Amino acid sequence: MELDGAFADRRVLITGGLGFIGSNLARRLTSIGARVLLVDSLIPEYGGNLFNVADIEPLVQVNISDVRDAHSMRYLVQGRDYLFNLAGQTSHMDSMSEPDNDLEINCRAQLSILEACRKYNPEIKVVFASTRQLYGKPDYLPVDERHLSRPVDVNGINKMAGEWYHVLYNNVYGVRACALRLTNTYGPGMRVKDARQTFLGLWIRTLIEGQSFEVWEGCQLRDFTYVDDAVEAFLMAATSEAANGEIFNLGGDCVISLNGLAELLVEVNGGGEFAKRSYPPDRKRIDIGDYYADFSRIRSTLGWIPTTPLREGLGRTLAFYREHLAKYL
Amino acid sequence: MELDGAFADRRVLITGGLGFIGSNLARRLTSIGARVLLVDSLIPEYGGNLFNVADIEPLVQVNISDVRDAHSMRYLVQGRDYLFNLAGQTSHMDSMSEPDNDLEINCRAQLSILEACRKYNPEIKVVFASTRQLYGKPDYLPVDERHLSRPVDVNGINKMAGEWYHVLYNNVYGVRACALRLTNTYGPGMRVKDARQTFLGLWIRTLIEGQSFEVWEGCQLRDFTYVDDAVEAFLMAATSEAANGEIFNLGGDCVISLNGLAELLVEVNGGGEFAKRSYPPDRKRIDIGDYYADFSRIRSTLGWIPTTPLREGLGRTLAFYREHLAKYL
Repeated sequence: MELDGAFADRRVLITGGLGFIGSNLARRLTSIGARVLLVDSLIPEYGGNLFNVADIEPLVQVNISDVRDAHSMRYLVQGRDYLFNLAGQTSHMDSMSEPDNDLEINCRAQLSILEACRKYNPEIKVVFASTRQLYGKPDYLPVDERHLSRPVDVNGINKMAGEWYHVLYNNVYGVRACALRLTNTYGPGMRVKDARQTFLGLWIRTLIEGQSFEVWEGCQLRDFTYVDDAVEAFLMAATSEAANGEIFNLGGDCVISLNGLAELLVEVNGGGEFAKRSYPPDRKRIDIGDYYADFSRIRSTLGWIPTTPLREGLGRTLAFYREHLAKYL
Repeated sequence: MELDGAFADRRVLITGGLGFIGSNLARRLTSIGARVLLVDSLIPEYGGNLFNVADIEPLVQVNISDVRDAHSMRYLVQGRDYLFNLAGQTSHMDSMSEPDNDLEINCRAQLSILEACRKYNPEIKVVFASTRQLYGKPDYLPVDERHLSRPVDVNGINKMAGEWYHVLYNNVYGVRACALRLTNTYGPGMRVKDARQTFLGLWIRTLIEGQSFEVWEGCQLRDFTYVDDAVEAFLMAATSEAANGEIFNLGGDCVISLNGLAELLVEVNGGGEFAKRSYPPDRKRIDIGDYYADFSRIRSTLGWIPTTPLREGLGRTLAFYREHLAKYL
């Protein structure tokens, strides 16, 4: 694949590099010869986990620091060819209970990272991990990038601003940047301790622990991207000049209701139980109903499509956590 | 008019209350019996000017503080029936040179004001001064509220976030709030010292000083709202439950090119000169081309229309600054 050569000996910085997607990205990048520096704050409520890079530990550099620390970021962006900017606060509920904290990470830190790039490394290429959360409750399905942004929680608003800073710095300052609007991403390395990244993590943990997991409502439609597919999208976006200044939805290989997902998960697991319940009130008011993405823009621009079937991805994920669950609790 | 009774003896807080629109709003509110508290930081680069309220000084309370000061805001929002939330950093160029400062005022302070309302005065009604700047370069004209937000400067991004915090707190917490997306607002009390609020202020000052003012490009179409019309929109939005959670464009009585505006201004002034030049490069890259608003949503929902013809509004504004220019330099 042509991506392989593109990263040989290139200097890559990944913020949130010990997190779920960041560490999978690092694994792939080291396999194709990149020189990878991971920045992570290892805040326990977020996704960073040193075990995520245990298998590639000799191949990567790890720097523990927080993207809110403008001084360290100013130094760390220098001399890099690529920045995969994945550090973020991802919990919708935490963004409501601690809005200022979400703003610091998802807005202010993003702006200061971009300022650092503009001043100290304007040649860098930046790919930002954005989210479908900023669409809010869809007007139509599937949701394409022309859909209005109408976020329903503080996290969605701040990620929207963070995304637009990237587009702006591309358009105004020529700091090449683009954004991927991720939908539910899943796979080995995801947070399973709680639902802060995605409810699916908690389902998987509960299932492996032999407990009954909870499905809230259940008829909502969703799409899921296996992490390896998400990683390919990041690499493609990084190496394409056509991506500069653009925003792309990612998506999944199929659309499924949460009930359907629960049943599939139990089936792939070879057993297990779940119970249906209605939304807790604080969750209900930021719910977005059905969502699934139209990802034709990234398909036509970069040639990306999700290639891992949901059933297979769930199988690999379950296998991983059956072996390594203790490292994620 | 029914608005007159609605504010009698009501307790009103205006942030940015010594500024251009805030002070005109205060004047109108005191005339209909409201008890008005003005909060302003009087930062010299912004719009606050004590002369703006010299004529109503015995009728209003003034509290000098900054909306970034969460402690003072927490106290000041308490016991108020209405909050007109107008404090903001408005300069597009300053937002690019000092992005963090813009973020503090237009994002973080807004979030903390709303948190203060939620915790200490959830019954308050909030009207937020947003801006057409967040649309960026229009896809179509006139621009309605369904147009995508694609801001072209840091100010537009941060105002977009600030606006959505208001919608969110309305929808999730029931803190009634709505936003008005202002286009170019003009009239007595506007900043004329420089172009930080609008280029038109600088034109007016230069004309009155007998100098030739500069028109950049000149073919761009724009719309202009006379401040008294903007004030009526704020009052209507405050008193309407139908406005809660909504976003409304304001607009003008006509659409005019900058060249046309320059000619009209000289004509109304009874003489004067201007020179055409091309955009400075730093300004060009954040230019939005033509813009004018479709304001049919606020017309149909609240019954608002602009009633002051541009020629008349310019006449009143010129008359004001002929008399009071020294107070604004």
